[in-house]
Amino acid sequence: MPQGGAPQQPPAGSFALAIDAMGGDHAPESVLDGLELAAERHPKARFLLVGDEARLGALLARRPKAARVCAIRHAPESIPGDMKPTAALRVRNSSMRIAIDAVAAGEAAGVVSAGNTGALMALGKIVVKALPEIDRPALAAIGPSARGDVVLLDLGANIVCDPRNLVEFAVMGDAFARAVLGLTKPSIGLLNVGSEELKGDDRVRQAAEMLRETVLAPNFHGFVEGHDITAGTVDVVVTDGFTGNVALKTGEGAFKLVGTLLKQVFTSSLAAKLGYLLARPALERLREWMDPRRYNGAVLIGLNGVVVKSHGGTDALGFAHAVDVAMDMVNHRFNDRIREVLATLPPRGRPAVTATEPSVNAR
Amino acid sequence: MPQGGAPQQPPAGSFALAIDAMGGDHAPESVLDGLELAAERHPKARFLLVGDEARLGALLARRPKAARVCAIRHAPESIPGDMKPTAALRVRNSSMRIAIDAVAAGEAAGVVSAGNTGALMALGKIVVKALPEIDRPALAAIGPSARGDVVLLDLGANIVCDPRNLVEFAVMGDAFARAVLGLTKPSIGLLNVGSEELKGDDRVRQAAEMLRETVLAPNFHGFVEGHDITAGTVDVVVTDGFTGNVALKTGEGAFKLVGTLLKQVFTSSLAAKLGYLLARPALERLREWMDPRRYNGAVLIGLNGVVVKSHGGTDALGFAHAVDVAMDMVNHRFNDRIREVLATLPPRGRPAVTATEPSVNAR
Repeated sequence: MPQGGAPQQPPAGSFALAIDAMGGDHAPESVLDGLELAAERHPKARFLLVGDEARLGALLARRPKAARVCAIRHAPESIPGDMKPTAALRVRNSSMRIAIDAVAAGEAAGVVSAGNTGALMALGKIVVKALPEIDRPALAAIGPSARGDVVLLDLGANIVCDPRNLVEFAVMGDAFARAVLGLTKPSIGLLNVGSEELKGDDRVRQAAEMLRETVLAPNFHGFVEGHDITAGTVDVVVTDGFTGNVALKTGEGAFKLVGTLLKQVFTSSLAAKLGYLLARPALERLREWMDPRRYNGAVLIGLNGVVVKSHGGTDALGFAHAVDVAMDMVNHRFNDRIREVLATLPPRGRPAVTATEPSVNAR
Repeated sequence: MPQGGAPQQPPAGSFALAIDAMGGDHAPESVLDGLELAAERHPKARFLLVGDEARLGALLARRPKAARVCAIRHAPESIPGDMKPTAALRVRNSSMRIAIDAVAAGEAAGVVSAGNTGALMALGKIVVKALPEIDRPALAAIGPSARGDVVLLDLGANIVCDPRNLVEFAVMGDAFARAVLGLTKPSIGLLNVGSEELKGDDRVRQAAEMLRETVLAPNFHGFVEGHDITAGTVDVVVTDGFTGNVALKTGEGAFKLVGTLLKQVFTSSLAAKLGYLLARPALERLREWMDPRRYNGAVLIGLNGVVVKSHGGTDALGFAHAVDVAMDMVNHRFNDRIREVLATLPPRGRPAVTATEPSVNAR
């Protein structure tokens, strides 16, 4: 059905990103508003907008910048936020599925969705598929630290991990930090309960031993602890999906608690209110710096394509940031780096590295 | 050797707490200053002060309140902060060991030390010994949340845990929240990567099933996530020692980052400085509320006595708070509660509860 204001669809293979226009709490409006911002930042990119053709056409007609860079592809259904991944896999004509199909078919280099996380991860793994060298794709994101941004992974894609998985996460985290943070030699830390070599369980100690034998060894800092994440001790913090998910949400919760308490402080008296007004420009800068929207865009890495999950509740600015992350990954061909480093690792089947200190297991 | 101003030693068995006077960065001065505060709060308690007799005698002579409630016991050695637990176990005449021996001998109901954490945990387990009903003692502490204080355990005593361990931690956390927070029905949450029943690994799902069969079931909230810790969703958050340690330190790190950034904000301009002065009383109240010293005192629970670890770097106020925590536990006979609840559990050998949904393991 022709749309007023909808652009002509360019030939296949020419899209930077496929966009699930129907995923997220405020979709498709917030998605389209986000694309209006993204179109300014990435004027040469073209986006495949997947969703309800009629609604999207009408919305695009009022967003001229987005309209110039987007083509619409109709999807009659969308995945509800509470649908289980196994059920979502069976919905063949959802906006998320059709967007992901476009990546698998090579029409787009990546996909961004603010929809159901579990469904996106399942579809990503099954449709886009993991790189042959990767055992388990991982979920990564960027957060604030005292020394700049820090990459944390895995954030929940893999609840149970072995040492080799952790090593692969380090390889992917390294590539991600290069592509998205623009670092040339990102330092890598393995999350543990202490920084001494003997701390933790066999799993992290073996992963550390294995990492010291890779080409990443010069940038491997060793073990880091929870407080090192926000201290910025390293650029990339590697852990299993259970611990990473808890760490991410615990940190977010702590930031939120302080924010709530500060609001109470600055409304607690007339003097405090006046104080807020005086300090406001600096406080606003702080708020902007800590803004969760600035860190929006968790990435499922280790796939044959870029898969970015935007927070479901974010607004246009947050969605545009998720598009930025996806574009960085597309433009920096970060999968090439992953494959390069993985090619230097011993094959997976090799027996685990034995601990150098017999006392390691005796504690 | 008689000490100027040192009190007479009361008969054995009459001490509330044995105090490792030589443990911690600023010991013994900060310990003695802490006891000077604690003596005011607990005027009827008597403390056994263990360490260098000559130094302690001289310090007590200048602290009249502490001198009234303390008896000195000489210990010629102290455990260095970096000594390995296995080595610490061999030092028989350290201040920490002699203080712990006093608990094992029934002379004191508990011990407080700001010294080497690993050494204290090892000595606690080996000398004071676990309650017969407890498989693994756990490290617990209290932190701030939006709805009051929250108990988190295990904080690192047990890196690898099975479902039964988690259930025992819940029992201990319940007793701790009753004794130290004064709650009559503390709510309990099991830390996971999502709140839905199917989330997480077999370990947390089995622990949840088992908890639903205990007398704690009415207060068991189910799964909670990282952000629930500071949101105050539950009074007690239960997890394994690896995850708990990372969560605790990640939360502390996040608070610290905001504190650092706020300092920058309030010194960034003349107006911001003036704003700080105006809002200062309210900001000071916030700082006091968040003060890590107010949350000082990690407790090794599940032993035949109270063992409290004060932060090594804390000051008098922090040490006095650790003494408060220990006194609360001693006064509320919290081990009785643990034994009561554990007596209602099926014996450890019983086969694990099978999941009710066959789909649980299929995901």
